Amino acid sequence: MQKIYLDNVTRSKARQIFLSRVQLPRRSEKIGTAEALGRVTAAPLFARLSMPGDHAAAMDGFAVQAERTFTANDRHPVQLKQGEECLPVDTGEPLPPGFDAVIKVEESLVLPDGGIEILAPATPWQHVRSVGEDIVAGELILPALHRLRPHDLGVLLAGGITAVAVLAKPKAVIIPTGTELIPPEAKRRRGAVPDFNSTVIAAYLQEWGAATVLYPIVPDDLVRLEEAASRAAAEGDLVIIIAGSSAGRSDYTVHLIEALGEVFVHGVSTRPGKPVILGQIAGKPALGIPGYPVSAYFSLEWFVPPLLCRYLGQSEPHREKLKASLGRRIVSDIGIEEHVRMAVGHLDGRFVANPLERGAGITMSLVRADALLIIPAESVGFERGETVELELYRPSGELRHNLLAAGSHDLIVDLLATALKEEGTGLTLSSAHLGSMGGIGAIGSGQAHLAGVHLFDPESGEYNTPYLERLLPGKRLRLVNLAYRVQGWIVPPGNPDGVGKVTDIAVKKIDYINRQKGAGTRILFDHLLEQAGLKPSQICGYDREEHTHLGIAAAVAAGTARAGLGILPAARAFALDFVPLCEERYDLLMSDSFYHSGAGKAVRKLIGDPAFRKRVEAMGGYSMRDAGKLMN
Amino acid sequence: MQKIYLDNVTRSKARQIFLSRVQLPRRSEKIGTAEALGRVTAAPLFARLSMPGDHAAAMDGFAVQAERTFTANDRHPVQLKQGEECLPVDTGEPLPPGFDAVIKVEESLVLPDGGIEILAPATPWQHVRSVGEDIVAGELILPALHRLRPHDLGVLLAGGITAVAVLAKPKAVIIPTGTELIPPEAKRRRGAVPDFNSTVIAAYLQEWGAATVLYPIVPDDLVRLEEAASRAAAEGDLVIIIAGSSAGRSDYTVHLIEALGEVFVHGVSTRPGKPVILGQIAGKPALGIPGYPVSAYFSLEWFVPPLLCRYLGQSEPHREKLKASLGRRIVSDIGIEEHVRMAVGHLDGRFVANPLERGAGITMSLVRADALLIIPAESVGFERGETVELELYRPSGELRHNLLAAGSHDLIVDLLATALKEEGTGLTLSSAHLGSMGGIGAIGSGQAHLAGVHLFDPESGEYNTPYLERLLPGKRLRLVNLAYRVQGWIVPPGNPDGVGKVTDIAVKKIDYINRQKGAGTRILFDHLLEQAGLKPSQICGYDREEHTHLGIAAAVAAGTARAGLGILPAARAFALDFVPLCEERYDLLMSDSFYHSGAGKAVRKLIGDPAFRKRVEAMGGYSMRDAGKLMN
Repeated sequence: MQKIYLDNVTRSKARQIFLSRVQLPRRSEKIGTAEALGRVTAAPLFARLSMPGDHAAAMDGFAVQAERTFTANDRHPVQLKQGEECLPVDTGEPLPPGFDAVIKVEESLVLPDGGIEILAPATPWQHVRSVGEDIVAGELILPALHRLRPHDLGVLLAGGITAVAVLAKPKAVIIPTGTELIPPEAKRRRGAVPDFNSTVIAAYLQEWGAATVLYPIVPDDLVRLEEAASRAAAEGDLVIIIAGSSAGRSDYTVHLIEALGEVFVHGVSTRPGKPVILGQIAGKPALGIPGYPVSAYFSLEWFVPPLLCRYLGQSEPHREKLKASLGRRIVSDIGIEEHVRMAVGHLDGRFVANPLERGAGITMSLVRADALLIIPAESVGFERGETVELELYRPSGELRHNLLAAGSHDLIVDLLATALKEEGTGLTLSSAHLGSMGGIGAIGSGQAHLAGVHLFDPESGEYNTPYLERLLPGKRLRLVNLAYRVQGWIVPPGNPDGVGKVTDIAVKKIDYINRQKGAGTRILFDHLLEQAGLKPSQICGYDREEHTHLGIAAAVAAGTARAGLGILPAARAFALDFVPLCEERYDLLMSDSFYHSGAGKAVRKLIGDPAFRKRVEAMGGYSMRDAGKLMN
Repeated sequence: MQKIYLDNVTRSKARQIFLSRVQLPRRSEKIGTAEALGRVTAAPLFARLSMPGDHAAAMDGFAVQAERTFTANDRHPVQLKQGEECLPVDTGEPLPPGFDAVIKVEESLVLPDGGIEILAPATPWQHVRSVGEDIVAGELILPALHRLRPHDLGVLLAGGITAVAVLAKPKAVIIPTGTELIPPEAKRRRGAVPDFNSTVIAAYLQEWGAATVLYPIVPDDLVRLEEAASRAAAEGDLVIIIAGSSAGRSDYTVHLIEALGEVFVHGVSTRPGKPVILGQIAGKPALGIPGYPVSAYFSLEWFVPPLLCRYLGQSEPHREKLKASLGRRIVSDIGIEEHVRMAVGHLDGRFVANPLERGAGITMSLVRADALLIIPAESVGFERGETVELELYRPSGELRHNLLAAGSHDLIVDLLATALKEEGTGLTLSSAHLGSMGGIGAIGSGQAHLAGVHLFDPESGEYNTPYLERLLPGKRLRLVNLAYRVQGWIVPPGNPDGVGKVTDIAVKKIDYINRQKGAGTRILFDHLLEQAGLKPSQICGYDREEHTHLGIAAAVAAGTARAGLGILPAARAFALDFVPLCEERYDLLMSDSFYHSGAGKAVRKLIGDPAFRKRVEAMGGYSMRDAGKLMN
């Protein structure tokens, strides 16, 4: 068997080893102060000039000699002649020579000859900004290792510093590797994988203060990899090699770093992120970053910001923490620190967090994530309802207005999410695809605000209501119609197998792709089978499951199935044929309290909005004739 | 008298008026996905392609047909021939046609002929990533009005979206006005004020997501101002006119906006920030921003981000809040909402906040500020020890390690601040210049960690200790020597008045500039007077006070005084002459508990460090022979 990993150390141990073995030596560069926003000072900065440079009026009014005003009072006003005795000055103007105080315009009566009359004396130096009141030449304006904010640029310019020595951005060279990789804009062909990781990694590094150089894709060829890595180490301050960090036949990264430098750590006891490599090439920090996107970005975030923050003299960024109640149970392996992406909303007076997809290849789980739950290595996970501490990706103030949608997947729910943003409701929406039955469960247990349900009850011939009565008896719930939609067979273009009725699937032994248990579409299929007197065992592929309509269409498009049940827009997305079967009702289930809440009203208003109806019906396969109507 | 302000409305009322009257209409532009970091989506984005595009191996191992493995177990291994029965695959590689599962490399024994032996069956589709597992074509990847993060770029590229419609950055045109203004890099001359505000305002606007156009400085000339403002309104989405917003003779901004468009608000009941103008020119939002820097940046922050956030569909940023105990009393006027910059540290188990300079012209107060205290209009202020809520400029985690220095000002304390950063201690230092006596008070009342003191006691001939015994009897305090420094007369170059002894100041009636009450240098001066049998009334300018050595030097350099008492580096900063008088001891006062704390040890270690000594002594006028030594 092949050699797997050198190590299985904890993340904190790996970090400690890495940071103790490598560093980025500080370099500085001089740039114009006006261009220095966000950069970090390389040395302490002392003012060269004072601000103000002259004694100046601090108010709009008149410059006077204080001693000439000492006798002024309500009963004995003092009059001052313009010129010798008083001179008009505006805020910021230098005090004319021989004058030592300013009287505010509001406190002076201007006389016809331009002089003034005053009713109170001025004290010497009143309303005068002395030389250096803000900044004194020689003063330390900013320490070294200070990140320049907008107003820092102001004090530098005011202090006569028009160019500033800042830390040069460390140059990170990113090397995407893999024979299967193609540039992201290249035409996709079988087996080719678009290299989006290098763009993402470059963007992260730029956010963290590095400059980035992106090398062209290097195929899995040790000689070419060595050449690229050597060049990167010569050119850059930091080398990031993407993929090939695992234990496959063409995973050369560990050998590469070993050959050119030294490997400190190969493999950390985390999920995702396990196959990371930490080492050095020619004394420059070198990272082998896993090819799976979530692993890649997580491991990058664990080991690169500490290096850059140390270089820049900045404290490491910390995410806001939040305690939340767990909406669903999470199981984790002992010995592995697991990082689970979570959706978070505020429900019934508490924050609720639900786990998202956990695969290291599911980039969308990062996009959807509101927070991160770190399950320690010594934990087997958490039970539903347990309070857990999250690290937030979005501010808690925003998550307080984040709606959790569960239940059946439909594109309209996605459109609802984007429309809530576009309408400026202040609401956002995170979706989990749990199927209709899962959605009812989620509403019942307070895990979600909304759930899409489309469950046909053959006995009563009704939609949804019978299921609620059976599954959540006595609960005050509301069903708001979202749409009627057409379900049908999703089949290859031209419907080559001539699929029409459900019996065709069984009789013609057509490779079928099913929806998961609890999905309304699966219940519909079971109902169709029963009506036709068929059994699941008569269907080839009855047990192969996808979780969304689009997943069904993708399987048919890929040729791994020849038919599935789903909705028209899914077939359209893959240019497949669609054989309409029946129209079904798709409702949003919500608690009575959510129905009446501000957020609930905003959602209902939006659903009933003609512009929204139009947008949905334009997709085809939907009728919005009852959209927004209360169905129970 | 001149017309002052049109209005005196509250900040929230002004905001409401402004936001209800103007807006930035949305425009979009299409840019390359890789360049779109931080930009905001203009429309929902649907995947064009699926990711993965083929069924692919999810593990490194061997592709198999699951049905051939069903009989495998510990006692009856199954052997699979390479080629027809199994094929090696690496993670991400497409599954070869005809295969439907992957067996992990760790779970297969490779045979000499390249085939494998397995001890357990594979289930169909195990370790296989199905088409669209991450992203399915047609799926909504991102909603409209979503700010693009690094991993968002990844999903867009993975989903086949290589160019993306984002909201165009609103173009803000900034017009610096004022006849007295000169570009910041121009040579300073009397009465000229460097225009640093426009650089700062542009930097803020860029941070908030606007594009900026900076116009050349326009003098106070209504015709030229109107021309510039009209052009700005034609060219930009937002017009920012800096200065001239107040009530001086040449404050044209309000007339300008009135003439070209409409003024909604002139004057809000805040300090700083009062003279702001909100209006429109040619339907474009137009702001008249006060010329005083703190007023300028505060008023900008109140009214511009709401406009930009609404345009970008983002929630407005909120600062972290923190409760802290007030170290010093703050008095405020009824009817004015006051925004006080604060220094914040963690002392004796609680956060302590001390007010910084409150003047609208003190840009350095913004630089030094750790937090903001907003005193409501209906409040007269807060007493010492009261708990107040702060808005933080720096994360509370960082402020926990921020040391508050009070007491006498010395450049070494500034050097200590920068050295603490450079040494990576994780400590930062905020200074308040309260004089030696003020410093003792601050340590006594738990307002500060450290205080610089240099108080000579004529009776005992000792430094500092007698004052502690008198002022803070029974307190367990520590005095750590920082340096000995030379005090002397700071006089114009060449010492034209021939200042030598203190009697010269009195006899020659030399214009003197004194330090504030409680400053060690003032006490020294009083001691010199007493020794010479002189009275304060015999000194011209005894009552004119500056708060720092540099302030004394600046006054002498400006010619408003002819002599002052201070230290050598201050005289040097202004190229003045220095007449040495005596050496004095400058100690750092701290509580016993701080002395023994980790932070206290770090400070003491740094003070005693030879590199630090060398750096201080290089400035001249200092001896570090006892630096770091405990003096009591």
